[in-house]
Amino acid sequence: MIKLANCMKKVEEMKPLIHNITNYVTANDCANVLLACGASPIMADDSGEVEDITSICSGLNINIGTLNARTITSMLLAGRKANKLDHPVLLDPVGVGASRLRNETAKILLDNVKFTVIRGNLSEIKIIASLIEKKKQSKATKSRGVDSAEKMDANNLEDVVILAKELANKIGSIVAISGVTDIVTDGKRCFYIKNGHRMMAKITGSGCMLSALITAFIGANKDKPLEATVAAVCLLGVAGERAFFKMKELKTGNSSYRNYLIDEVCKLTPGTFSNYAKAKEVN
Amino acid sequence: MIKLANCMKKVEEMKPLIHNITNYVTANDCANVLLACGASPIMADDSGEVEDITSICSGLNINIGTLNARTITSMLLAGRKANKLDHPVLLDPVGVGASRLRNETAKILLDNVKFTVIRGNLSEIKIIASLIEKKKQSKATKSRGVDSAEKMDANNLEDVVILAKELANKIGSIVAISGVTDIVTDGKRCFYIKNGHRMMAKITGSGCMLSALITAFIGANKDKPLEATVAAVCLLGVAGERAFFKMKELKTGNSSYRNYLIDEVCKLTPGTFSNYAKAKEVN
Amino acid sequence: MIKLANCMKKVEEMKPLIHNITNYVTANDCANVLLACGASPIMADDSGEVEDITSICSGLNINIGTLNARTITSMLLAGRKANKLDHPVLLDPVGVGASRLRNETAKILLDNVKFTVIRGNLSEIKIIASLIEKKKQSKATKSRGVDSAEKMDANNLEDVVILAKELANKIGSIVAISGVTDIVTDGKRCFYIKNGHRMMAKITGSGCMLSALITAFIGANKDKPLEATVAAVCLLGVAGERAFFKMKELKTGNSSYRNYLIDEVCKLTPGTFSNYAKAKEVN
Repeated sequence: MIKLANCMKKVEEMKPLIHNITNYVTANDCANVLLACGASPIMADDSGEVEDITSICSGLNINIGTLNARTITSMLLAGRKANKLDHPVLLDPVGVGASRLRNETAKILLDNVKFTVIRGNLSEIKIIASLIEKKKQSKATKSRGVDSAEKMDANNLEDVVILAKELANKIGSIVAISGVTDIVTDGKRCFYIKNGHRMMAKITGSGCMLSALITAFIGANKDKPLEATVAAVCLLGVAGERAFFKMKELKTGNSSYRNYLIDEVCKLTPGTFSNYAKAKEVN
Repeated sequence: MIKLANCMKKVEEMKPLIHNITNYVTANDCANVLLACGASPIMADDSGEVEDITSICSGLNINIGTLNARTITSMLLAGRKANKLDHPVLLDPVGVGASRLRNETAKILLDNVKFTVIRGNLSEIKIIASLIEKKKQSKATKSRGVDSAEKMDANNLEDVVILAKELANKIGSIVAISGVTDIVTDGKRCFYIKNGHRMMAKITGSGCMLSALITAFIGANKDKPLEATVAAVCLLGVAGERAFFKMKELKTGNSSYRNYLIDEVCKLTPGTFSNYAKAKEVN
Repeated sequence: MIKLANCMKKVEEMKPLIHNITNYVTANDCANVLLACGASPIMADDSGEVEDITSICSGLNINIGTLNARTITSMLLAGRKANKLDHPVLLDPVGVGASRLRNETAKILLDNVKFTVIRGNLSEIKIIASLIEKKKQSKATKSRGVDSAEKMDANNLEDVVILAKELANKIGSIVAISGVTDIVTDGKRCFYIKNGHRMMAKITGSGCMLSALITAFIGANKDKPLEATVAAVCLLGVAGERAFFKMKELKTGNSSYRNYLIDEVCKLTPGTFSNYAKAKEVN
């Protein structure tokens, strides 16, 4: 069994500084969830400074949620620099498939930067796979903006695992797919994670926050990025479950839930966390 | 009587994807309030993708709160594309009157894009009216940044209705004016809405959130944009009243109130909503 | 004794409009904390409008948290215009020391704009001091992104006061250093402030919010900027203490704490505030 709680302790001990080139919609949530888990955030997206900034950090989180011509250049510069310094780098291809610009940007980033982890919903990961294969985007792969148009359930879970493993092997990255069941694989080993709550889809940014968390976890656990990714996915999932009880207790709604989600990351101890984490290795 | 609850149900059923070109101050709140009402948000403001993005959406929300040279171009491109596709488009002229750039931008947008709805406070709508009439901004019309310098009360409400109707007729848009009493008119019919709470002026973004909500409502109710606008105004107002009780109950303040406001949109059912909505048609 | 409560009352009476050129991470929090204290926020960062915007305001808050080539120009234009109009201007050199761009920007701003107040953590203020002295950044001065790498405690507090006073005298600005004990000095008089709570370091933006608050206070108290700065530092500190009790009461965490911090600014009356403020003049 993998030691998820140890990955969490390492974050608390190392307090990794994480460089985020991310969207302005959820930047505040990403910063607060990083602080909640014991890491330290810095958001910086000007091409004139991203190489300096990423050099003093322990991990780089690239999120294309509100990309623009200026920040795409910054993503490339920071990504290459992080690679040179052997820092872990994560790609969150938010909304890929919704525009040619997002597709082209994802492709350029994948061609020029080696990502430790790629995290997205099923629609986004399918688009990424099609971009890599230089195939036309499959007609079966629809985009619904930043939300997944594709569902994962008992019927297609095994197909999704095959897709994820193939992609992971092709690009040499860990692939994390968020859904009712989350999937994390490095192409060889594969995990199902059954934590989380459907309320997480009623707020903006739960995906972005997860990407930030994963970056902190792989930054503090450089020798075991797969375990670190699984741990981060479990952590936000457990927090999401507990946040739901808080929302029910205080009779609030989705916006308060967003706060409680971060609160619970802040409150969870490694001990409690490992009692509730539901990660299972599959073949 | 108009069926406000039906407009709300249509949003829940259709789950419209809404494209927002909006300011970075309240983007997170706009995204969460869209999710709260059952819609889906996407924020995208690069000129290289806004036409693609708006094409897959059911409505476009243009908010000039933190406009810049880059995003003004994007607003124009997206607005024209949405017009071509017959998608509903809303303009929130945040802070118009506070700078020449905001005035010129509002004018260019009004000259090039057909807006289904224009929503602002009384100061902003007065400036818009003066821009349309190519008159110099009336000395009586002051700007106080993004807040209204002009009050609506029993003494001037009828004058405001005349102004709103004239503007609506001139530009062929629904005009929605936010204040203690909200006014919504398409130039022919006119409604007073008496929902809302003064705490809504103690947070940033209640106007921006309302504009996002209206865009979702007109996106899901394309055949009755006037009713849809009235319904959205009532919805945020009812939520604002209920959020005040939550704030009192938990003894918190304006920042928590902002969360409760979105929470209450999330919690309201069409049935409860229609019991509390206070819209009245006037002549 | 200085009349801190009077400074607070002046903000409530004058309701100063505050122009913020600030980062997108904490812009929403800054806007809400300004509303909480009775001021009015406007965020505007395009070079085409910042001079117009700052002209209708009573204070300018420049924060380099997510600076870029475009907004640096705007900071300079707005800063010079505010100087010309004799409006108070504050500089928050977020993350200075973390990149050459931040150092160069801080230097250019200091060379071209007269700041009423400079507020930062100890690392940031040390870097500012080294930039002013045209010395190489001392090896002892480390940067840890946007958080302070330097601690203030009983052992070095007097040295920090000397540094702060020297800097204040050299540039003719009030210097405010945030830490466990906050220091505010205009080069002649110096105050220790012992309010605040360690939870304020577990959220993003407590520094940015303080800078926004100080700008409102110096905007409404132009004749006594030192007292106004001390009052604003005490106010956020007292709010931070009270927010901690709310967090404990509702058993939440850092993200909710961020809301309570703003809530408490909103709830505090001048009377209660002056009972809890702990500012002490030192030599």
